[in-house]
Amino acid sequence: MRNIMIVIEYDGTNYHGWQYQKNALTVQQVLQKAIKKVTGEEVALIGASRTDAGVHALYQVANFRSSTKIPTEKLPYALNSVLPDDIVVVEAKDVEDSFHARYSAKRKRYRYLILNRKFPMPTIRNYSWHISYPLNIGEMEKAIKYLIGTHDFSAFKTSGGSKTNPVRTIHDLVLKKEGDFINIEIEADGFLYNMVRIITGTLAYVGLGKIKAEEVIQILESRDRKKAGITAPPQGLYLMKIVY
Amino acid sequence: MRNIMIVIEYDGTNYHGWQYQKNALTVQQVLQKAIKKVTGEEVALIGASRTDAGVHALYQVANFRSSTKIPTEKLPYALNSVLPDDIVVVEAKDVEDSFHARYSAKRKRYRYLILNRKFPMPTIRNYSWHISYPLNIGEMEKAIKYLIGTHDFSAFKTSGGSKTNPVRTIHDLVLKKEGDFINIEIEADGFLYNMVRIITGTLAYVGLGKIKAEEVIQILESRDRKKAGITAPPQGLYLMKIVY
Repeated sequence: MRNIMIVIEYDGTNYHGWQYQKNALTVQQVLQKAIKKVTGEEVALIGASRTDAGVHALYQVANFRSSTKIPTEKLPYALNSVLPDDIVVVEAKDVEDSFHARYSAKRKRYRYLILNRKFPMPTIRNYSWHISYPLNIGEMEKAIKYLIGTHDFSAFKTSGGSKTNPVRTIHDLVLKKEGDFINIEIEADGFLYNMVRIITGTLAYVGLGKIKAEEVIQILESRDRKKAGITAPPQGLYLMKIVY
Repeated sequence: MRNIMIVIEYDGTNYHGWQYQKNALTVQQVLQKAIKKVTGEEVALIGASRTDAGVHALYQVANFRSSTKIPTEKLPYALNSVLPDDIVVVEAKDVEDSFHARYSAKRKRYRYLILNRKFPMPTIRNYSWHISYPLNIGEMEKAIKYLIGTHDFSAFKTSGGSKTNPVRTIHDLVLKKEGDFINIEIEADGFLYNMVRIITGTLAYVGLGKIKAEEVIQILESRDRKKAGITAPPQGLYLMKIVY
């Protein structure tokens, strides 16, 4: 059996996220159906990141086992010919049998796009978070420093059943302002559920003056989700890179 | 009667262009309906540019006569509260009685966005033209020089009934490559029907080697639409500015 890795881009607007769901359309399902059409095989596609409904991917990685004879360089074209135009396979390659898109990932990188001006912008309404009140960038940059490094991020996690280790290492967290846009990029060894969106929401609260930059230290220490800012909406979030 | 000017942004994806049509949804209609809801008046909204189906606007100007008492600073909020989220009014002001959004315009500026890489990009599929074969930017830049200035642009006009003067002055035409994106901005005293899209299609043909840069001189002189390149698709086009 081959172990095939694919790199995928998608517009998450019309999907209930990556992960298979019984009564809703997800990216994983649509891709598995496309693989079935092209190879004739029912596969279990493993995605590196389980993006939520409305979240986009400029670089999602997945892998599946297959006996297909289609060469990897032709696979993206074959899959794209049967995929809807909001999901595109940009790369395929044969990988070692041990490769697992999720467990083999060493780091993940996300981007969050904020539009900060008085009125919303129609052409990017599904691709950004509109905040009409002016954000204080200097304060947001101060807050960022407290988040970089290894911390218990329990306060930045939507509570759920999973009892995963809440300690993560943020290797890189940068904020750039270009005109009315604020771009936040964050790279870590892994992310807790909704972690990027809660960090973004908290930074936005700092920018709005609702939370002081230094308070981020106490929020981390509290391990209490209620102390952090809101969960930023999904449509501003992009999966950017998976490092193996 | 007041003469009110509004500045509008819209995502053209779901509209059959700006101009009123009997059996199709247009931006003008939706705005007129919103104005009716807010002021109670049936108005004739005059747009600076009649953008085609699928074309976007980051700065469209329109004007209408009204007896409403709503102050102009509140009008955008009132209109946006009843508009769908793909049309946003970002400014309103009272203007002289003689102001006419179309006839008073001195210059218009458009932008055209090309994605030039092997595979399409899902998140911008409705906001750009995907060209998979690599474009020769140097040749495109050469061709641009022949288009700037005052010319008879008959070769760059979709033939129709209107017998308007085909002489136009292009004041500015610039091409910028950033990563996989090519951005073309063009400013002129006015544009013939589909002129920006035919210029873009012709520049793309130059970039692909189907037309030589110098041939643009003969295309202009021929006044023959068949000699120019294809009409670039609407979704890469943005109305950027109206100068009065």
